[in-house]
Amino acid sequence: MTAGPSVIHTSGAIRAEVLAAQAAGRRVGFVPTMGSLHAGHTSLVEQALADCDDVVVSIYVNPTQFGPHEDFDRYPRNLAADCRLLGQQRVRWVFAPDTAEMYPPGNATRIEVAGPAEPFEGRLRPGHFSGVATIVCRLFQAVPADTAYFGAKDWQQTLVIKRMVRDLGLPIEVRVCPTVREPDGLAMSSRNAYLTSEQRQQARAFSLALEQAHVDWQAGASVATITDGMKNALDAAGIAIDYAAVVAAETLRPLESLPLETAAIALVAGRLGQTRLIDNLPLSPRGSATC
Amino acid sequence: MTAGPSVIHTSGAIRAEVLAAQAAGRRVGFVPTMGSLHAGHTSLVEQALADCDDVVVSIYVNPTQFGPHEDFDRYPRNLAADCRLLGQQRVRWVFAPDTAEMYPPGNATRIEVAGPAEPFEGRLRPGHFSGVATIVCRLFQAVPADTAYFGAKDWQQTLVIKRMVRDLGLPIEVRVCPTVREPDGLAMSSRNAYLTSEQRQQARAFSLALEQAHVDWQAGASVATITDGMKNALDAAGIAIDYAAVVAAETLRPLESLPLETAAIALVAGRLGQTRLIDNLPLSPRGSATC
Repeated sequence: MTAGPSVIHTSGAIRAEVLAAQAAGRRVGFVPTMGSLHAGHTSLVEQALADCDDVVVSIYVNPTQFGPHEDFDRYPRNLAADCRLLGQQRVRWVFAPDTAEMYPPGNATRIEVAGPAEPFEGRLRPGHFSGVATIVCRLFQAVPADTAYFGAKDWQQTLVIKRMVRDLGLPIEVRVCPTVREPDGLAMSSRNAYLTSEQRQQARAFSLALEQAHVDWQAGASVATITDGMKNALDAAGIAIDYAAVVAAETLRPLESLPLETAAIALVAGRLGQTRLIDNLPLSPRGSATC
Repeated sequence: MTAGPSVIHTSGAIRAEVLAAQAAGRRVGFVPTMGSLHAGHTSLVEQALADCDDVVVSIYVNPTQFGPHEDFDRYPRNLAADCRLLGQQRVRWVFAPDTAEMYPPGNATRIEVAGPAEPFEGRLRPGHFSGVATIVCRLFQAVPADTAYFGAKDWQQTLVIKRMVRDLGLPIEVRVCPTVREPDGLAMSSRNAYLTSEQRQQARAFSLALEQAHVDWQAGASVATITDGMKNALDAAGIAIDYAAVVAAETLRPLESLPLETAAIALVAGRLGQTRLIDNLPLSPRGSATC
């Protein structure tokens, strides 16, 4: 029987633990989460355990990254179950702060990232990436790890975080790990729990649309053709489309004016009833497909 | 003959030096400056030397805290003279980055502080405190010192920085040191070098107005009376007033609705020709004057 992770609630305490481990020559990995852990999160933990001596997982549902009509209140929370799951891995610490710890009384500081934060989710969820950047910077101060791990499912978020880390010179390496999917292709997400069984079937359309986009991309189809194909597939499945696009993977800019070898990515977002889901798929450089 | 400080230009190099000193049990102090050093800066260095084993002074004229019509281009720069001055103290390192080091290509991240950043300088210099907060956070990542030293002359700036440090949990102590003044009372400022000899005489009105405010405050005068007195004095000296106010020292809010024992501060700002100067004076709690 394994001892579970130590659950730590204050920044000062987790910071002291991490610094002491590093002073003893140990490499520390950090997986920031909002809890409600699934196989996507545990894959990040697996990567952190493979790279590092000790791993911290933070569990904090950050209010500032939710819009006023979004799902902050109903977002699933279960610290005990999350800790049990992490106890089956070799996670050393769970950092579970409360909001007064993350946002002290009178707090008035926000980090704003332009560039990759502007299109897509940035346009549809005003303030979202500011909330993400602010809490991630705050968490990085509490958990001064060597490497932090984020899932590629939230691709635009990873670009925003990498931009902030570079711009502010935050002394941490950011590692982006592949999206983990259900057997039928649906990307793992805590929000999948909101889906009715009917919606769960419809939700397959996200990954199917992305896979078709990948096939069409390799076959040399135009961005417009691929985009139309994704939209038709999502629409046919009854998904209210927020966007479906093929853009430069590192900047999210339109591909038209960019060199052919620019890495591309297909992005989709849409709603099934009250539940909003996003997904993406990197598209291999077309050159690599010609053989 | 003392060896001067080591001049370091990259974040990675200064960070490694500071961390190595701390790992050896040494306490490190940090004085961020825009160069053009005067006795105000050297008093910060003196305090840092008194508190710490090693001291870093950064010299960087930060473009993002200047407005489009402000004095970024003509702001005085003289790294060699600054290093000579610091060589007379026991400063170990000068961190002198260039702009590509502080703001990498494609940079898109800004820190916004509301609250204490909003009135006075915040209203008159849009973007100024965002530039200050962003560069100070960036510098704190490069120079992970134990304590950072700032002058009380830029009082509102110290409140903004303390707010940011608290909100983001930046692991550094902020120490605010008293304003250093010329023999006639003028607060030390790199911008004093812009003054003609006539303006230099007029500029005495800033500190004289503040001293009179202090006398009137202790005598029990109302905020309105004191404010009018400061405005009249500045006006009579030919200063174009930006503001003259008595407010709560820690929040810059109006005093009317606050408890009597709230610490107060008198703030003044105005222009002599093209040169803009600011000054302030903490007002002792009125209770302490009754004896």
